[in-house]
Amino acid sequence: MAQHWKTPAGRALRADGLRVADLDTSARPGFRGGKKAGQELLAERSAVLAGLQEKLYANGRSGDTRSVLLVLQGMDTAGKGGIVRHVIGSVDPQGVDHAAFGVPTGQEKKHHFLWRIRKELPRGGQLGVFDRSHYEDVLVARVHNLVPEDVWQKRYDEINRFERKLAEAGTTLIKVAMFISLDEQKKRLRQRLERPDKYWKFNPADIDERGYWPDYQQAYQDLLDRTSTDDAPWYVLPADAKWYARLAVTELLIEALEGLNLQWPPATFDPDTELRRLDSA
Amino acid sequence: MAQHWKTPAGRALRADGLRVADLDTSARPGFRGGKKAGQELLAERSAVLAGLQEKLYANGRSGDTRSVLLVLQGMDTAGKGGIVRHVIGSVDPQGVDHAAFGVPTGQEKKHHFLWRIRKELPRGGQLGVFDRSHYEDVLVARVHNLVPEDVWQKRYDEINRFERKLAEAGTTLIKVAMFISLDEQKKRLRQRLERPDKYWKFNPADIDERGYWPDYQQAYQDLLDRTSTDDAPWYVLPADAKWYARLAVTELLIEALEGLNLQWPPATFDPDTELRRLDSA
Repeated sequence: MAQHWKTPAGRALRADGLRVADLDTSARPGFRGGKKAGQELLAERSAVLAGLQEKLYANGRSGDTRSVLLVLQGMDTAGKGGIVRHVIGSVDPQGVDHAAFGVPTGQEKKHHFLWRIRKELPRGGQLGVFDRSHYEDVLVARVHNLVPEDVWQKRYDEINRFERKLAEAGTTLIKVAMFISLDEQKKRLRQRLERPDKYWKFNPADIDERGYWPDYQQAYQDLLDRTSTDDAPWYVLPADAKWYARLAVTELLIEALEGLNLQWPPATFDPDTELRRLDSA
Repeated sequence: MAQHWKTPAGRALRADGLRVADLDTSARPGFRGGKKAGQELLAERSAVLAGLQEKLYANGRSGDTRSVLLVLQGMDTAGKGGIVRHVIGSVDPQGVDHAAFGVPTGQEKKHHFLWRIRKELPRGGQLGVFDRSHYEDVLVARVHNLVPEDVWQKRYDEINRFERKLAEAGTTLIKVAMFISLDEQKKRLRQRLERPDKYWKFNPADIDERGYWPDYQQAYQDLLDRTSTDDAPWYVLPADAKWYARLAVTELLIEALEGLNLQWPPATFDPDTELRRLDSA
């Protein structure tokens, strides 16, 4: 089924040189095939992802300090939660460290913006998932002037240094910026307003935020230009088609895990001796 | 398919008056039907569980402080990890707070035995899962004399008080003790020794622990007799048949969630006003 990808997701979605304003959010970079083919492939690839994740976890349990961290960013309704549910949901919950970052609490505001992030970093062997992240501090913080410009301007370099250290310490970062069109967002917000079982996902402020769309686009552009590094590249994900977004993130995770060349941890005991002990125990 | 249960799992597995030494670990209390029927039913009931969990999460996001906490105890290879993977794995990872409690670290040993437990309690709206728990402190701690008897003897009452407070604060506790036979354990340990992809799950100490089987049985008996309360009942789960164990825990979780009578959170805004605002945004 891999023949559906004419370019691997990791290459097709690389942010380098990309202009956010020109992005076709309904595109499916690298993939040839429609929704049905995509969904069938997702089922298949989810099993591959689960197998790789188990190996990462096994190595973590055996002392390997490496980890993988998926960072999800995107406007409201872009589908971050759906990625967690449908992609991360396919792997063993024991190996997942999930954290969502909302409006900072009073205590969090008193600290450096990376303080709350550091507390949630994945342990060795874990697949970490950030639903929003430290990048909110150069997105909403910038668009709404929550801090002076000289403060948020410095954050890009701080983030790069922070992520370089993370990478050096063995964390493979996969940063995914999900983009939908203004129309697609309207459709998704409308659904939340028309279905009582979706009311809880709706916040009137989400509508106000639409007025800042161009500001966010600019903030995302700068973020991509300034924080997509070799240590921690950004992937730009057109996300109007949910099935494509889920499949693409699955592929990104598979590529990252395959890059770790994980083997099953060797025995730290002699299996034959232990089998004999077991027989008489 | 519910007709497969002639007695609801919550009633069939209640610990009251049960003798651990007499337990048939291959039984399937309350269930009539074999493995195939059980697996089909599990697929169906997993979807029900996922729907209820989403409602719990939605309420938590809307300020409801109630939560559910599944506590899993059992000897090595009893299948605790399998429950996490196959039962908890069917719900949205965003709503799961998972914690595994191993041998206490140096820092943990300096604190009261409930210290590390309190840090991992589920937040409002979350489904917490403890893979081992504070009950290790009246199991391994007792069997291996890690603390003097007068210390562990006091812990039963401490635990009851702790759990009563948790229940009063809105946490529904579901405590599940998984039991397998000594023979079934031998079979499962052998598999870990015969398959290189399972070596990482094996620890030579697991074989030594088999020598303490009667002591653990006695420690489990006292635990059930002394800490199965109305606030926080124990369920005794025969776990030789993995499919039955997974199905039964799924049912216990469904019963607990249904008991909360969860509704979708009401709108805190006027949907029609917001729809009009959306149309012009």
